[in-house]
Amino acid sequence: MALRAAGRQSLVDTVVEQLRAQVAAGEWKIGSRIPTEHALAEQLQVGRNTVREAVRVLVHAGMLRSRQGEGTFVVSMADPAEIMRGVQRAGVRDVLELRIALEAEAARLAALRHEPADLARMKAALDAQTAFEDPEGQPDSGNLELYADHDVEFHRAVVEAAHNTALTATYAWFSSSVREALVTALGDRDMPRIIHGDHHALMDAIASGDPEAAARAARELLERPKQAVESLLAES
Amino acid sequence: MALRAAGRQSLVDTVVEQLRAQVAAGEWKIGSRIPTEHALAEQLQVGRNTVREAVRVLVHAGMLRSRQGEGTFVVSMADPAEIMRGVQRAGVRDVLELRIALEAEAARLAALRHEPADLARMKAALDAQTAFEDPEGQPDSGNLELYADHDVEFHRAVVEAAHNTALTATYAWFSSSVREALVTALGDRDMPRIIHGDHHALMDAIASGDPEAAARAARELLERPKQAVESLLAES
Repeated sequence: MALRAAGRQSLVDTVVEQLRAQVAAGEWKIGSRIPTEHALAEQLQVGRNTVREAVRVLVHAGMLRSRQGEGTFVVSMADPAEIMRGVQRAGVRDVLELRIALEAEAARLAALRHEPADLARMKAALDAQTAFEDPEGQPDSGNLELYADHDVEFHRAVVEAAHNTALTATYAWFSSSVREALVTALGDRDMPRIIHGDHHALMDAIASGDPEAAARAARELLERPKQAVESLLAES
Repeated sequence: MALRAAGRQSLVDTVVEQLRAQVAAGEWKIGSRIPTEHALAEQLQVGRNTVREAVRVLVHAGMLRSRQGEGTFVVSMADPAEIMRGVQRAGVRDVLELRIALEAEAARLAALRHEPADLARMKAALDAQTAFEDPEGQPDSGNLELYADHDVEFHRAVVEAAHNTALTATYAWFSSSVREALVTALGDRDMPRIIHGDHHALMDAIASGDPEAAARAARELLERPKQAVESLLAES
């Protein structure tokens, strides 16, 4: 019974991969209807239930859309989960560069579009963070998780102050993965110390309404860890 | 029979949403094991097959991972497909700003890291595009799809010249959605004309190895359509 279930599970996975590959290759164009369950079952030599389960996976993935009584249509050639796996496989330097791209542009737009509530949220995150610092202003080693939470909250507040739903949605995915990397980095003595003043400089640049200064401050905040990663890579 | 299948389908969808919400709310932490199929079936008052199908959807989505004989673990709190739906729902201005963020940073890095093959690819895309222009250098209205293909290929070549797998993966998703928007825009007389010289200016800035000039050229290329969208929005 367990074996049968496992066998069926991997069969669905195989059909998911086959359908995904056909969509990604552009065999079925965006907006077009894919063959019926019946036709796909014949073509792939599997049961209709297997096809139905595989289609459901790709509907949830955002590649297909089912319309009641009309059939199933291609809505995207790319599988977002595949893309995110690509980002997850990328090295730390590459992810920091992607963060610089998103955060520097967000800071630029935030300087032009921020509302008082956005600045209050940034300030609250920085104020809360100080509770988890040791007397030298460094993250308290017993509270790295809480320290990281407030850091992530500050950066999210900056990105959301751009009032751009596409930037916010893209950055949201990073927040959880960035947080894990941050906790590790905070515990690593080879990583450069986070300087609180840098965060305040970014907040002040946004508050002053100067887009170039805000973009520069956001970039500088991430350039230091990036350079540290690059010199660690050069040494090894 | 059709009704039963439809009923079961929406039940799986409901369970997917419930599990997704529990993961997104942090009820099960990243790295932790979720309850067994049996326990979830009891808790949600559904059959084990329904739970199994819902878990499969979230495994493919990249939120969960199943380890043979060990159980199912949380790997991400965010569902990439949800994030991508967020980007899809965003307005044209927001998407153009996200493209500026990614492409300006990619151009900056491409100036420092490009290889001869990268420049050859950009040049080939621009050369091929001229075949689909009318005598005034504007996209030939009978060949908008092919014209757009070469435009997308040029921008992908710029992004990939940054040699950053995280940027490449993130941008890959845009390529297919950007292409559709582009075909629409090319057929719209209110959109600013694409000026071929701008694309060559970006390629030349990358070739010259000047990161600031390359970032500026990439930004300028997209600022014009962004301003056109903003003035259309202001008029309506």
